[in-house]
Amino acid sequence: MINKLVENIRKTKAPIVVGLDPMLDYVPKHVQKKAFQEYGETLEGAAEAIWQFNKAIVDQTYDLIPAVKPQIAMYEQFGLPGLAAFAKTVDYCKEKGLVVIGDIKRGDIGSTSAAYAVGHLGRVQVGSKSCRPFDEDFVTVNPYLGSDGVNPFLKVCKEEKKGIFVLVKTSNPSSGEFQDQLVDGKPLYELVGEKVAAWGEELMGDEYSYVGAVVGATYPEMGKILRKVMPKAYILVPGYGAQGGKGKDLAHFFNEDGLGAIVNSSRGIIAAYKQEKYERYGEEAFAEASRAAVKEMITDIQGAL
Amino acid sequence: MINKLVENIRKTKAPIVVGLDPMLDYVPKHVQKKAFQEYGETLEGAAEAIWQFNKAIVDQTYDLIPAVKPQIAMYEQFGLPGLAAFAKTVDYCKEKGLVVIGDIKRGDIGSTSAAYAVGHLGRVQVGSKSCRPFDEDFVTVNPYLGSDGVNPFLKVCKEEKKGIFVLVKTSNPSSGEFQDQLVDGKPLYELVGEKVAAWGEELMGDEYSYVGAVVGATYPEMGKILRKVMPKAYILVPGYGAQGGKGKDLAHFFNEDGLGAIVNSSRGIIAAYKQEKYERYGEEAFAEASRAAVKEMITDIQGAL
Repeated sequence: MINKLVENIRKTKAPIVVGLDPMLDYVPKHVQKKAFQEYGETLEGAAEAIWQFNKAIVDQTYDLIPAVKPQIAMYEQFGLPGLAAFAKTVDYCKEKGLVVIGDIKRGDIGSTSAAYAVGHLGRVQVGSKSCRPFDEDFVTVNPYLGSDGVNPFLKVCKEEKKGIFVLVKTSNPSSGEFQDQLVDGKPLYELVGEKVAAWGEELMGDEYSYVGAVVGATYPEMGKILRKVMPKAYILVPGYGAQGGKGKDLAHFFNEDGLGAIVNSSRGIIAAYKQEKYERYGEEAFAEASRAAVKEMITDIQGAL
Repeated sequence: MINKLVENIRKTKAPIVVGLDPMLDYVPKHVQKKAFQEYGETLEGAAEAIWQFNKAIVDQTYDLIPAVKPQIAMYEQFGLPGLAAFAKTVDYCKEKGLVVIGDIKRGDIGSTSAAYAVGHLGRVQVGSKSCRPFDEDFVTVNPYLGSDGVNPFLKVCKEEKKGIFVLVKTSNPSSGEFQDQLVDGKPLYELVGEKVAAWGEELMGDEYSYVGAVVGATYPEMGKILRKVMPKAYILVPGYGAQGGKGKDLAHFFNEDGLGAIVNSSRGIIAAYKQEKYERYGEEAFAEASRAAVKEMITDIQGAL
């Protein structure tokens, strides 16, 4: 799947990923109204609204982008109907040829991580049958529990030729509280980065490993170091746009081949119609505003490389 | 809710929690067969099997125990039907008067953690209505992203008088890989423990804080230190029984009042019928074997205190 991701990036010349994180506030009123008329102001209604919102944005942008990253929390907050909308979104994006990165940030002790791994990337055995519960292409993984929380994901990645992005240095303001702590003079995130490189050695695609890393756009200097620590890891870079990261900060996350990183934008794309810059589209044409924002993001990032 | 947990522990004299982590392998063949006859060898069939398994165990043990801890991964691996069984299990246990600790180990950047917090502990706004998606009493939280990943949970805990258990030192063999790293001569888990104590100060119940910690039974010496670092935090102690922790290792996790810790056992209780010790019950009476295992666990722990 890492090969497909690289291929999609080469084809679109766009090392970006659209974060499908549909807060209900982002969904235009007319989409909400229609969903609530059908299902009421219920979890089902909210789930229908975010699904219709996603679908419109995907339809308007899929030809420009290599991948999407649905953040499962934004669906899980609407309970079972929300999670059904997550599954529908994953399936729809895959039908459209997009690589789907499930932003699930799971991670637990071995036997439990194994359950997450088969649930999201693999097949679960039920009697004599095996079923694919969610079936994303990649997922994000939290490393706090160490190797035996990550190994079950590696096992499934190997079987399914899928991948993970391990949280190394997250984009949020307080990420340094634990991640930046110095261990023998070296920050913890670097130690995690070294592990990512080691975990990924056995799981190589043509050019890059199945095992990638999450490093926030908001910390470009750390990105520069981590790029060297994990030369074969694709870096998923959140924090561009609304969180403060800019195109010029991103060059260091990439390798000299122009590959090796994929930059996420969520709010900046999916709620573009709310920005002054795109307000000419109006709420009705929110998905066209997203398309314009994707084009601008691609230009910004291409300019920085 | 921390007050209810303490009250339930006092009433039952049992500082234990039953981990409802129903791997399909634990579910007796006759329960699986019945579920598969009704729903086929499908995710729905698996979900029905684990729900019937849980229900039988809860019916046989609820009068002896204060709380249960369903591990959501064991449900999530069966996709949407599995998560429906999780929700049904949560609701059923609450009806039986049990405190429900959702072992979800979520944690993300602020706005995303907020979605998990309302989804699992609070209410989510849908138009003019507010809905309760999963509605556990406590959840477990991963601290790797720092304070701004935890704060949204604290906010919801305050509003709802609910609680969290933050991962401090997990029970698995490789937990030390990152958690034990020395930061200024002090292990990272101690730093996290200090944060737990600080986060909990503003959220006090009668005797203990809404903010607890997870510390594995497999690391009793670290439990001793962490008990002092977080005197008002309830410690959720996994790793007893099948993972190797023993009753005598547990004394240090408790305060002098005999409170302050709650010990989890999953496999040791729910799959008790598979142990030589309880094989006289046979597969048909698996839930009675669980009841016997609960009684023995209570005796073992009371003896250690």
